[in-house]
Amino acid sequence: MSFKVVASAPGKVILTGEHFVVHGEPSLVMAIDKRAYVEAVTEERKVRIEAPDLNLYWEEGLDLPKPLAPLKLILERLLEEAAKPVGLRIKVRSELPPSSGLGSSAAIAVAATASVSKALGIELTEDEIFELALEAEKIVHLNPSGVDPLISTVGGVIAYRRGEGYVAVEAAVQPIVVVGFTGSRKPTGVMVRKVERLRKAHPEVMAPLFHAGGHLTIEAAEALRIGDLKRLGELLDINHGLLSALGVSTRKLDKLIYLARRAGALGAKLTGAGGGGCMIALCSNEVTADRVARAIERGGGQPLKVKLDNQGVRLEK
Amino acid sequence: MSFKVVASAPGKVILTGEHFVVHGEPSLVMAIDKRAYVEAVTEERKVRIEAPDLNLYWEEGLDLPKPLAPLKLILERLLEEAAKPVGLRIKVRSELPPSSGLGSSAAIAVAATASVSKALGIELTEDEIFELALEAEKIVHLNPSGVDPLISTVGGVIAYRRGEGYVAVEAAVQPIVVVGFTGSRKPTGVMVRKVERLRKAHPEVMAPLFHAGGHLTIEAAEALRIGDLKRLGELLDINHGLLSALGVSTRKLDKLIYLARRAGALGAKLTGAGGGGCMIALCSNEVTADRVARAIERGGGQPLKVKLDNQGVRLEK
Repeated sequence: MSFKVVASAPGKVILTGEHFVVHGEPSLVMAIDKRAYVEAVTEERKVRIEAPDLNLYWEEGLDLPKPLAPLKLILERLLEEAAKPVGLRIKVRSELPPSSGLGSSAAIAVAATASVSKALGIELTEDEIFELALEAEKIVHLNPSGVDPLISTVGGVIAYRRGEGYVAVEAAVQPIVVVGFTGSRKPTGVMVRKVERLRKAHPEVMAPLFHAGGHLTIEAAEALRIGDLKRLGELLDINHGLLSALGVSTRKLDKLIYLARRAGALGAKLTGAGGGGCMIALCSNEVTADRVARAIERGGGQPLKVKLDNQGVRLEK
Repeated sequence: MSFKVVASAPGKVILTGEHFVVHGEPSLVMAIDKRAYVEAVTEERKVRIEAPDLNLYWEEGLDLPKPLAPLKLILERLLEEAAKPVGLRIKVRSELPPSSGLGSSAAIAVAATASVSKALGIELTEDEIFELALEAEKIVHLNPSGVDPLISTVGGVIAYRRGEGYVAVEAAVQPIVVVGFTGSRKPTGVMVRKVERLRKAHPEVMAPLFHAGGHLTIEAAEALRIGDLKRLGELLDINHGLLSALGVSTRKLDKLIYLARRAGALGAKLTGAGGGGCMIALCSNEVTADRVARAIERGGGQPLKVKLDNQGVRLEK
């Protein structure tokens, strides 16, 4: 008899505080209504992973494509724990563009942990799902902050500080965010090291700059809590300037950000590690969001309209 | 018998600290080898001002064009002090584009004070020249920091803090700076008020951000003193990010700044009040400076290559 379970987990956007979070400041992160879905089916013996969107496939005996290494670890751990002589096939489908800072790989890891454990009859708490997904993520991201699998697990908006856990932020409004992908990518590690070098070269300048970044996230969380999107937008603009001071913006990012602001966004900034990747624009309504999306597209970016998703990992019917 | 005297005074670029200087932080300002020249000739009775470059003319009995008001005040004060029944004609010629943040009006006021006083046989100290030019500037700039007439008077590079005077910075190298004019202008007062509003709206974020800006100028002065242009360039880049966080950059400024960096500049930032106006790019040598100037021109900006001028106000032969 075979079991089939589908679980999903949301991606995320960093609203404020990326890079600052690496050095002990808080960051504000929002789960979005674009998800990764993982279907797990128990089989007789084989263990297989299919990710047709990513053009990746693996089964026992074949070379393992690196991006699938976290999933293999999750499968192995859970099969070991289940201690049953059973195979497993998982199939990944994601609405999240990979390697774009939207937390695609973490969402996949979280959804896989939830679906595979369920298919094998293992009961995991949210905490345990998060922990296994985080461990799996560590294979590909050397020193992940852990915020990606966390937000994919719990959903909503969280203010997160490394080593101190997180606080859920109840948003009094439904923020609409237009993500704009520049079409290029830089490894997060490269950008983190760039900032690290600058911090060491100019400690007297960087210390207060990082304090400013930290205060900004605290204010942004409060603006969201009281539903003051205009204030939140202004803070996103300031945050982008601080990130520019860290040297992680690019001409293309700045172009899309100016276009989004001119099209009526309340505020716009790069999101994630920078050096390429994505920007986000906060919008007060759907009409503006559509106008901003068109402006991003005309500017050569790939727009994706997203909303806050209060649900974290979940089993699908 | 008529006396003819020509005096000149240099314009300036703000290397670091604009806007921050308004709120008590230091600013680093460099006199440049583009000057305003004022010729003063005593005449029988009439008082006349000619500024053919600016397309402005005034003589007693005609309506006074507002940009000439500071010069009229200087003439009146000095004629009063001379207490001679004499007229005066002054002719203004400037290598500095007006209203572009390069200190054109202050350089004209300083050169006029020097030439007119000399023509009338009044001996003024540098301090007195500065004070009269500053008073004249106050007619058109409501609350000038005073740094423009100061640098035009003393030349070189100065670290300046409002209300605390200045320190001369001996540069161990000859920095070459390419100025790029965007072609548009915003009144300084508008930009200062924009920053003021942001400061009041987000005091917890802005206080450390302004500290960062202040430390940056102290580091930049030190970099110039020891001749580390690479370090100075990096600080200009950071400074531009901080100014972006204050909301005073524009898409056009950012475009010229990216082009200058890509063309080999050691660093680039907006200079002056922003919202348009000029950017500057620091270059290590003439070849790079020419390449940067061409990149700025191709990007739709108007380049002007300038160097440090250690001489302030002076009488010309």
